[in-house]
This record gives sequence, structure tokens and C-alpha cells, in this order.
Amino acid sequence: MSACTPYELRNMDGKSFGNQPLSICDETFTPLEVHYDLEAAKSLFTRKSIEAGPANIWRYRALLPIPEGFEPDLPVGFTPLVRAKNLGKRIGANNLYVKNDAVCFPTLSFKDRVVSVALANAQAFGFTTVGCSSTGNLANSVAAQAARLGIKACILVPADLEPAKILNTLVYGAQLVRIDGNYDHVNRLCSLIADQYNWGFVNVNLRPYYAEGSKTVGYEIAEQLGWRLPDNVVVPMAGGSLIRKIRKAFKELVYLGLVEDKPVRFFGAQATGCSPISHAVKNNLDHIEPQRPNTIARSLAIGNPADGPQAAKMIRESGGWAEDVSDVEIVSGMQELAETEGIFTETAGGVTTAVTARLYAHGRIHPDDLTVSCITGNGLKTTDALAGKYEAQRAVRPRLSDFEEYLREMNYAAEAKPELVLAGGK
Amino acid sequence: MSACTPYELRNMDGKSFGNQPLSICDETFTPLEVHYDLEAAKSLFTRKSIEAGPANIWRYRALLPIPEGFEPDLPVGFTPLVRAKNLGKRIGANNLYVKNDAVCFPTLSFKDRVVSVALANAQAFGFTTVGCSSTGNLANSVAAQAARLGIKACILVPADLEPAKILNTLVYGAQLVRIDGNYDHVNRLCSLIADQYNWGFVNVNLRPYYAEGSKTVGYEIAEQLGWRLPDNVVVPMAGGSLIRKIRKAFKELVYLGLVEDKPVRFFGAQATGCSPISHAVKNNLDHIEPQRPNTIARSLAIGNPADGPQAAKMIRESGGWAEDVSDVEIVSGMQELAETEGIFTETAGGVTTAVTARLYAHGRIHPDDLTVSCITGNGLKTTDALAGKYEAQRAVRPRLSDFEEYLREMNYAAEAKPELVLAGGK
Repeated sequence: MSACTPYELRNMDGKSFGNQPLSICDETFTPLEVHYDLEAAKSLFTRKSIEAGPANIWRYRALLPIPEGFEPDLPVGFTPLVRAKNLGKRIGANNLYVKNDAVCFPTLSFKDRVVSVALANAQAFGFTTVGCSSTGNLANSVAAQAARLGIKACILVPADLEPAKILNTLVYGAQLVRIDGNYDHVNRLCSLIADQYNWGFVNVNLRPYYAEGSKTVGYEIAEQLGWRLPDNVVVPMAGGSLIRKIRKAFKELVYLGLVEDKPVRFFGAQATGCSPISHAVKNNLDHIEPQRPNTIARSLAIGNPADGPQAAKMIRESGGWAEDVSDVEIVSGMQELAETEGIFTETAGGVTTAVTARLYAHGRIHPDDLTVSCITGNGLKTTDALAGKYEAQRAVRPRLSDFEEYLREMNYAAEAKPELVLAGGK
Repeated sequence: MSACTPYELRNMDGKSFGNQPLSICDETFTPLEVHYDLEAAKSLFTRKSIEAGPANIWRYRALLPIPEGFEPDLPVGFTPLVRAKNLGKRIGANNLYVKNDAVCFPTLSFKDRVVSVALANAQAFGFTTVGCSSTGNLANSVAAQAARLGIKACILVPADLEPAKILNTLVYGAQLVRIDGNYDHVNRLCSLIADQYNWGFVNVNLRPYYAEGSKTVGYEIAEQLGWRLPDNVVVPMAGGSLIRKIRKAFKELVYLGLVEDKPVRFFGAQATGCSPISHAVKNNLDHIEPQRPNTIARSLAIGNPADGPQAAKMIRESGGWAEDVSDVEIVSGMQELAETEGIFTETAGGVTTAVTARLYAHGRIHPDDLTVSCITGNGLKTTDALAGKYEAQRAVRPRLSDFEEYLREMNYAAEAKPELVLAGGK
């Protein structure tokens, strides 16, 4: 297993804060970011060293903030990047790929990546309880991975979360606290708790380390494309961190010479019912106007996104764009991706798919561009979004004549066996 | 991509049937099996050629019945094999692994393996409609993969299937037919339909090819253990095919010199509410006494399993055993695996986990044996099995004082920050 590049937390002015569970610079009140010694990385983070690694995110460990002596326990990530020819045909995209974190190990969302990096650090800092504020997927992943590591988990979520996401947190034995409010209320409360208790909150005091895990989506995309960058990436936005970290990954790959430099446009996807970042992009704002979320895409329902301003800025600078779609379009997006590519995604993936379609329809993406659409979670987590979309059909008696009558009822054209037709013609 | 080994269908007496959509010898009425030219495989199926392949089942294509010219489309399989220390501690197992097909791409069960092999053959035989009889996971996988390939799918299931498995079939646009009966009724009807229509039924007329896909579970286990065989494998049994094919995979690996020969004991897991194979093993029967299924483990609810007699025979011959557990134990097994290893499995995985625990408790497996427990599907597919297990807790107002009151209510011990304690002591 290759060594890690030296890293430390720094504020915007480059001041070092060493390594500690801290996310905000106490002087400038700006977020801290993990800074690597990229010169040292040149010999550690190479195509060869990566390709010799395991088929999971730890193949990129040389550029992850992993404490010394950490032994990766779980094969997280390295999810499929699949060519989406059928979806492409429907929406006018000739060179479209889907990055499919709906099958990420262990809990079927991209949050598994960030959580595994955060918990590695939580353990190094000696925390025996970890926590998070979550719109669902993070809750699932923290609960599962903490169980595996034998750490206590206390997880705070908005009270109206989808039943499958609630169950998929409780089943691991985590302490779940339902908060009477939206994510932004939950998140503010978690900051207060993190000040009070000796807990490692993956997306509060451990946030700089946590967020770095998202870079692996970018590394994987580039490697799975045969060590090259795409023309465009379409990314769902909740807090705005993922899209920024994918760019960070691409930049590191370019700097270290693993891919050729080229312009990559970043496109952000939100639900209209919670679209503070896409609003900022569309209106060229340098700040975020907080919103009160009202959408079925609950995993994206962050009305005051922490990384919103930076995400909006980088999208515009890249020459990209942001779009938001209605709840009806979100459901259609989920169905379209399932029907064309056999990938069942949650509401957030419906957002990404519907936004991708609109970007092509509006000419914001050229049909021949190499575009990657990021699917971040599994459809079985938000089945309630499809309630009423599929009528329960009547049960059929187990006899051939009943079955055939049913096919006629359904207008289902069934081709008879050629041999039987010939035999009948004798 | 390496070439495939020549293969053909043969009956029990070794008579060739070439390659065609046929599962039963019309003379002896026994199942046909795919037979490979293992001498030719010696140069094609090597550790080196496999390790040079992609991180999915197609790395084993040289010993899969894949038609000439077939280009793998989907990165199915190569799921994690994880060391289960925590679960092991609870059940007295010192060297336990879990093979986790709950995160198999694309539809979160081991059926993705068999379906991808079956559909490769369906396309080669020119079928434009495929079908299956299913207890749920197969339905999900056929629907998803057929959508991706642009083939029509008509899928028959027992009418009482879990809602998530119904939705996870319909969402891909498949024609789903709910049959008023249990799986055995559905399966008999499918045989009649397969005689009548020009359809490729993955588990009827394409069954010999389909079933070979299960071998990849065995290949992966051996490779992921560092090219060696385990002492024991615990496998859930529905039709009885998976356990047989894992053994076939191990035998091929031994024959071709990829692993050292050693005795492997096979253990079968069933729900007591549908336990025809474990009944046969326990009572040393050479036939199966069909049962009428009544269990929450619906994906295993096959009362008259096609490969039952052979499965029972090979289990006994291997020195293994079969066990069956109650619905209450199944739910406990699901919870135990989630709480210890962070893996959320469906009811079938609860069966496997509970049976594994019992095998250790009864001394059928030695604590130090290297044992692999096969988890074949995801917990989000059978959430109804856990209904009522987790009470909805009251929502808490988003204030620190309310949160702290709630923790006291829950008797949740929370460690204060050391710094704060010191500050207070000044």
C-alpha cells in the first residue's frame, strides 16, 4: 500500500492549522481546506501506483487525508461508469456516460466515500462517538460504517425523511434523532452540539477531511475514461461540496501529469423547490439567497448550502451552467434513467437526469461532447416518490389460457414459436 | 479481452446437444449442463489472464458460456468479500468472511450475475423478448438488464411479492404479471409459456447458460481470498442452483491449477417456512418432499426446488449440513449483520446469517475454520420484514436544550468536550 502525501489544514490565506478536528478558521471565519504537498505527491500518486491498488477508493489514498498507520477496512467506491447510449438517444446526447454511485458499497450512495475518509480521521483523533446532520444518505453511511468500526453514532435528520432512509439508519443500531425542522435547522443544531460534546461530526468539525472523500468521484471518472477528462460534468448540488471536489480532483490530476489539461465545464443540478445555487448561477450572484426547501428531492434539500457561493462561482468560471427541475420532472428523470439504462436512482438522480436532458435541449451542452452525469444514490431509498405511478395490476390465475387472456387485455404482442407455426401448417 | 473456452450443452450421459435454448434432455428428462473443453481452458483461464481483466465477472469470461463476438456491456459483480470480525465475535467465529452481493451492480443481488450471462445468450439466439419466473430479485435484474439492452421483458411473479421488488421491476418498463399462486405455480406456467412463445426465459429454456453465471461467486471468493479455497461456505438455497455452481467453480479452479485442492464443506441455509432441501439433508433423503412456502424470506420461497436433490446430495457428500431458521430468527439475522458489519441485507441474508450462527453454535463449523457466508441481496428490497421493529421516536425541536433533554430521555451517555471541562474548572 503506497504512502500518503503530507497534508494539513489551511485557511484561505494559506495559514496552516496542522491537523485537528476543525472546519472554520477562527480568525477569518472561512472554511479550512486540506492542503497537500503536491511536489511530494509526484512520486506517490502515479497512474502506475494507482492501477496497482485495490478496486476501491483506497487506490487514491496517496492524495486523501489519511492518518498515518490507517489500514483501509472497507472496499468503498470504484463504482461503474457506464456509457448511456439509450438515454443519450432520447435526449440528443451522442457521448454520454453515467457515473453510478447508486451501487456504492456499503450503503448505495456517494456519501460512503466521504464517510470512510471522515471516520478514518475520527478514529485518529480519538473520537468514540461520531455524528452528522443529514438529509438521509449521509445518515445511512455514518450509521453503517460506524457500526462496522465499533464506534457509537448519533445522527440528526429532518423529521420528515423518507421511511427507507430512516430504517436504513436505525437498522445499524445508530441513535437517530429526528429534528422538527429542515436540514438547515438540523445543521445549525449540530454545530452547537459539536461545540459542547466530544464528538466527531463528520460534516461539522471533521468537514475538511470528510469533503476530500468526494474527490474520488473525479479521480474515478478520469481513470475510467482511460486517463482523460470529460468535456462536461453534471453534478447534483445540495451543500455544493461534491462539484467543487470533482474539480479539485481534476486539477490535481492535471498538475501531476496523470491527464492532459483541457477545459472542463461544470454543470450543477438542483430541484426547483430548493435551488439556491442554481438561482445564484442564473442570476450571476456572488452570494446565496437562502430558500425554504419544498421538494421531493430531500437529499438535496439544503436551503442555505455551506459551499454554495464557491460552487456557483466555479460553475460560471468553468463556462458551465446550473439548472433546476420540478418534482414532476424529477420523477420522469428517475423513470427515464431506469427505462433506458436499467439504473434505478433516487430522487436526486432524477434531478441530475432531468437537468442533463434540459442542458442538451437548451443547447448548453453540444451533442457530441463527452459528458458525465453523476448519479449519487439508489432508487430503493426513495420509493415513495413513485407512489401511485404504477397501478397494481390484477393477479392472474396460473393457467396458460388465463395468461393469454391477460396479455390480450394488456395489448401485449407476443410472438409465437416459429416451429409451432410450421407444425401447424403441415 | 481473452477468448472463451469451447462449450456445449450435455445431458447426464455426456450426450451433446450443441448450443440451443433448451434446458431438459428430451430423452432422459434430466437437466442439461454446460460442458467446457477444460483442456483448452488451461491456457485461457489463468490467474494472470483473470487478474488482467476488468473488475467484474467478465474477468472470468473464459469459463462462462459466452457466445462468440459478445462484448460485455455491464460491469456486473466482483462484489466485496469482507472480513466479519464483529459478527464473528458475536457468534464464536474467528475467521469469518461475508461475500456481499447486496451491492451487486446493477440491481443489488447475485441474480445480476446469472441474468447477464443468460441475456448474452438470449441475444445470440435472436430472442427479442425475454422472460422469467421470479421470487423478486431475478425480476429486478431481468427488467433492468433487458431495458439496458433494448429487449422486451415479460416477468411473472407470485402476486404477494414485496412492494419494493414489484416497483423495482416496473420502473424499468418491464411487463410484470402477478400470478395468483406461489413460485412453483409461476414456474410451471412459465414452462408452458416457453413452449408456446418465441421467448427466451432466462430460468427455463436458457437455464443451463443462466445457471453458469452463479459460478462467478465461487471464482470471486477464491480469488479474493488470495487464490485459495475456504474451509466452509454457507449459501442460501431457493432452487438449489447457487450452491452447486459455487462447487463447480471451485472444482474448475482446482482442475486448472489456480488453487490448491482441499476439502470444502458446503452448508445450505433455508427458512423453516420453506425448507425442502434442508429437510432432505437432515433426513438423508435422496428426493425432495415439496412444501407449500410460508415465510417472510420470499426470495427463497421455492417449495419444489429444481436443483434440490442434487444440492442435498452434494452438501452431504462434502461433509457439510443444512439448517433452517424461523421468521423471527431471520429478522434477528438481518439486524445482527447490520449492527455488527454495517451490511443491510434482505430476508434471505437474514436466513444465511442466522443459519451461520447456528452452525457455529451447534459445533458444525469449527471456530477457527475459514468460512464464507454468502449474502445475496439488499435489505432495502424487503423493508416490510422490519416493519414495527423500530418505533418512530418523537421529533425534537432544533435547540440545544431540547436535544439534551432528549438524550437524557433516551439514556444516551454523551461525553462533554475535555476543553470545556477544564475551562469550567478554572
